[in-house]
Formats: sequence, structure tokens, C-alpha cells
Amino acid sequence: MSNIAFIGVGNMGGPMARNLLKAGHQVTAFDLSDAVLDPVLKAGARKGASANAAVKDADVVITMLPAGHHVRAVYLDNGVLGAAKKGALLIDSSTIDVDSARAVHTAAEKAGFLFLDAPVSGGTGGAEAGTLTFMCGGSDAAFEQAKPVLEKMGKKIAHAGGPGAGQAAKICNNMMLGISMIGTCEALALGEKLGLEAQKLFDIMSTSSGQSWSLTTYCPVPGPVPTAPSNRDYAGGFATALMLKDLKLAQTAAQSVGANTPLGAEAAQLYSLFAAAGNAGIDFSGIIRMLRGKA
Amino acid sequence: MSNIAFIGVGNMGGPMARNLLKAGHQVTAFDLSDAVLDPVLKAGARKGASANAAVKDADVVITMLPAGHHVRAVYLDNGVLGAAKKGALLIDSSTIDVDSARAVHTAAEKAGFLFLDAPVSGGTGGAEAGTLTFMCGGSDAAFEQAKPVLEKMGKKIAHAGGPGAGQAAKICNNMMLGISMIGTCEALALGEKLGLEAQKLFDIMSTSSGQSWSLTTYCPVPGPVPTAPSNRDYAGGFATALMLKDLKLAQTAAQSVGANTPLGAEAAQLYSLFAAAGNAGIDFSGIIRMLRGKA
Repeated sequence: MSNIAFIGVGNMGGPMARNLLKAGHQVTAFDLSDAVLDPVLKAGARKGASANAAVKDADVVITMLPAGHHVRAVYLDNGVLGAAKKGALLIDSSTIDVDSARAVHTAAEKAGFLFLDAPVSGGTGGAEAGTLTFMCGGSDAAFEQAKPVLEKMGKKIAHAGGPGAGQAAKICNNMMLGISMIGTCEALALGEKLGLEAQKLFDIMSTSSGQSWSLTTYCPVPGPVPTAPSNRDYAGGFATALMLKDLKLAQTAAQSVGANTPLGAEAAQLYSLFAAAGNAGIDFSGIIRMLRGKA
Repeated sequence: MSNIAFIGVGNMGGPMARNLLKAGHQVTAFDLSDAVLDPVLKAGARKGASANAAVKDADVVITMLPAGHHVRAVYLDNGVLGAAKKGALLIDSSTIDVDSARAVHTAAEKAGFLFLDAPVSGGTGGAEAGTLTFMCGGSDAAFEQAKPVLEKMGKKIAHAGGPGAGQAAKICNNMMLGISMIGTCEALALGEKLGLEAQKLFDIMSTSSGQSWSLTTYCPVPGPVPTAPSNRDYAGGFATALMLKDLKLAQTAAQSVGANTPLGAEAAQLYSLFAAAGNAGIDFSGIIRMLRGKA
């Protein structure tokens, strides 16, 4: 069992670290907030005095931070790359911009470390249950070494490609998710106004060319898919604020490489409007209310 | 076996009428174009001198016409509703605006006829093979009476609801299809520019929340789905001009009932740009070329 340093143990990192402890790993945890650190310490983790102190003896370092600048700050500029022991495997599971991920990859390689960008999907529910999907970018060696550790926290561990490919795959997927959810909401709301029963339109679209995960797994109107957040008034699920974050990351990446994403850009604007109307905390499928004119 | 009048035997109506003949029905066909009428006559149909003459002795009337004004012209104003025999079942399989469909429904009911709007999906391939999907709007009585006839031309016969519901379901579905196809193209094109292999991104998205029919059945880049038109340079399939027609019908319906469809409107504009650049005849998944900047 490895000695693992876990930096950033909030809503996602906390349950992920606890799953590593359950699997028998030694975990040294660090977070700026004592409130989120506490349950991880209670579950058996040791407390790191700082990020650099936490990684000192670690075989594996895992970071789960809000944004690219946090990840740069933790790894670069007298950070983890200077403090980690030789041969440590470094895994960043934060969802951040591709450019930051690649910058840290380059610096890590220069410092002699294997590094993997490995953002997740599956939300806090998946983090608790250990059923996350990891989308990984980095060398085959880094991926193979990381896989047994990631399998303690996730069900599906995908190798998307080289440095930054994990972040790239995640934002491409989630940009499509944001677009398809709004499209599904528009179709269902148009159907309502045209007098169609939601269940009948669902039955037709879900077995036809209008099918998508947004409709068949996460249907934004209550009824057809009982497990979807629409059935519990859009509580829980995937918060609008996080969808907006991913859509903005997709726009940043698109601008960085000169890609055209007209619907991705529009989806970001629509989720921004929806979040600004006080809906940042509810599930992103709730945007059907705004499209109906009853946000 | 019924005596069926078939009005409009072009790309879609032609093979549909031939499937009715194969099933043993008597068919009287009418079309303004002798060129499209010919193969249907050779297959055993009788020639109607006019639309009204064709429907005179028919038990079932089927129309397959380009737009709402054609359907109004054929049925209303001294048309089929005055010429058809008492008790005839009237089926309009054209894809037209919901308001026209409902206007003809109302007039047909007043004249004492059972009427069904029953637009199809499945394209010319589905019409030839007799595997179309019919989306039907009208009374239970009209639907039950039409079903055995429609089954000779299609594989799936869905009852979407009352008058106009078939048209409504089709445009809701196809609006979502247009949106999800552009979204899928944007995600794949962004992935390319970020250095992701198409097959790897396909593998991740197709088993994740970015999944849609556009990706998994009709993948707009060649390789992952060998039957998709992308593998034959976007020939055949579902023509951009027809997708644009359906997106415009969705916009007309949305404006008619006051529905908000921001991505549907944008999709219509993007397909309009793509068609205007000389791509009206190629499959609608070819829009990835425009998004890449190589239209």
C-alpha cells in the first residue's frame, strides 16, 4: 500500500481521500480549510502542515483544486515539484484549463516526475461511492502506475492521450453535455407548448435520432427517468455553477487553439444567465425553467 | 386489400407507394411530374388524371408533398376533402408546419373524414426498405385504422397525440438532432485542435454524458462508426437542405406558440450558412467541415 499525499479535500477530494484510506493506503492530507480536513483526519488520515510538508514522504501525490492558478501555485514556484521525493507519481484530478495542465506537465517532466492530468466526472455521489470516471492525460508509464490507485476511487479509468488530454477530453465531453441538455430542454419545452405529452415525446425521441444522454439518463422533465434530478425539483446532481465552469474552460481552450464553437459559446452564455438568476446551486437540467419563461 | 390513392410520388412517396403495391394494395398515383410517376406506374399503379380524380374511389388517401401550402392546396378549396368518398381515411405523410397540419385536420373533421398527420423519418433508404418511422397525430380511431397500412411502409408507427402531434414530435426531435449534431461536431473539432485522437475522444464521449445519437450512430468523423456518411465523404444520408427545412419548421412553430429555442435558432442559422456555401445536397454531418474552417 502506498503513502499518498492528498491536497485539497473538499466536496470531491474529501470522499476520494476517504476511499483511499478504506482501501488501506496511508494518506497525508492538506487543505486550507480545517472544516473539510476534519472528516478526512477522523477517517484516519495524517495532517500535513503544508502542501510541501504533506508530499515529503509520499509515493503518490494527488491534487484536487478549484482552478488552474491553484494547481500552478501548488506545483510550481518552490512548490510540490521541489518538495516531493524522487520517483513520486504526481496526479492532478482538478478540472482546470488545458494550458495550465500542460504547463505543469512540462515542469514536472523537467523535474524528473511522472505526471498525470486526471480530471473526473461523476460528481460528489460518484466520489462517495468510488464510481468516478477518470479521464487521464500523460505517458503510458504514468497512466499504468496511476491506474491501481485511481481504481480505488473510480470505476472507469480512461487514457485519453498525452499531457493535457484528460482535461481536453473532459471539456469536450462536458461542452457537448451542456449543449445537448439545453437542446433537450428546448425540444421538450417546445413540445409542451405544442400540446405534446412529455412522456410521449420522450418515448419517440429516446428511440430516435433525437436521443442523447441528457434525455435518456438525465431527462429534464420529471417522470420519464425517475432517477433524474428533475424528479426532486433539481436538487443535487451536477450544479449549474460547475457546468458553467466547464463551459468557460471549453471557451478558453477553443480561443487558445482557434476552434469554432458557436453552440458551445451560446450554451456558456445561457448557463451564465441561468446562474446569475440565482440558480448556480441547482442541477443544470433546471435550465428548462428559464427556457419555459419561469426561471 | 385497400384501394389507395397516393399523391406525390417523388423521392420518398415513390418507394412508399411501391411498397404498398408489393403488399398487394391497389394504388392510384398522382404527381405533377411524369418522371417520378413513371416508376410507380411500372410497378403496377394506375395513373390518376388529377389529385381529385385519383382519390375518387379510394379507401385510403396518402399525400407526400413538399410543404404546408401544397398540402392545404391539395385538401382544401375544392380539393380532396370535396372529392374523396365518404368514409375514406386521409393520411398526410408530408413534413409540414404544425399550423397547416392542424388547419387541414379541422377541415377534414368538419367534412366527416378521419385524418392523420403522419410525417416520417428514415430518409429515402428507409422508404425503399419499408423501415420508416411514422410519427402520427390524430384520433385513436384514425391511428388504429391507419396502422396496418403504415406498417407496409414503416417499421415503427408511433402515436404522438392529437391533431398536429405527429408534425410537432418530428420537428422537436429533428431540432434536437440538428443541435446535437452541431454540438458533436464542435466537440470533435475542438478535440482535434487540442491534439486528441478522434477514436479516443469517441470512446470516452460515447460511454459518458456527452453521448448522443449524432455521435454513436452517425459520427461526423470517419472511423468510429463505419456506417455513418462521414465514411463516404458525406454523400447520401440526410441532406443538409432537409435538416434546414426541419429547423425552419421548428422556428416557425416556436414563434407560433411563443417557445424559446436559442440553440434551435442558432442551429438553423448555421445550417443556413452551410447550405448557402454549396453544401445543401450533402449529409448534414458534413457541417463539421465548416466548423473546422474548411467548408
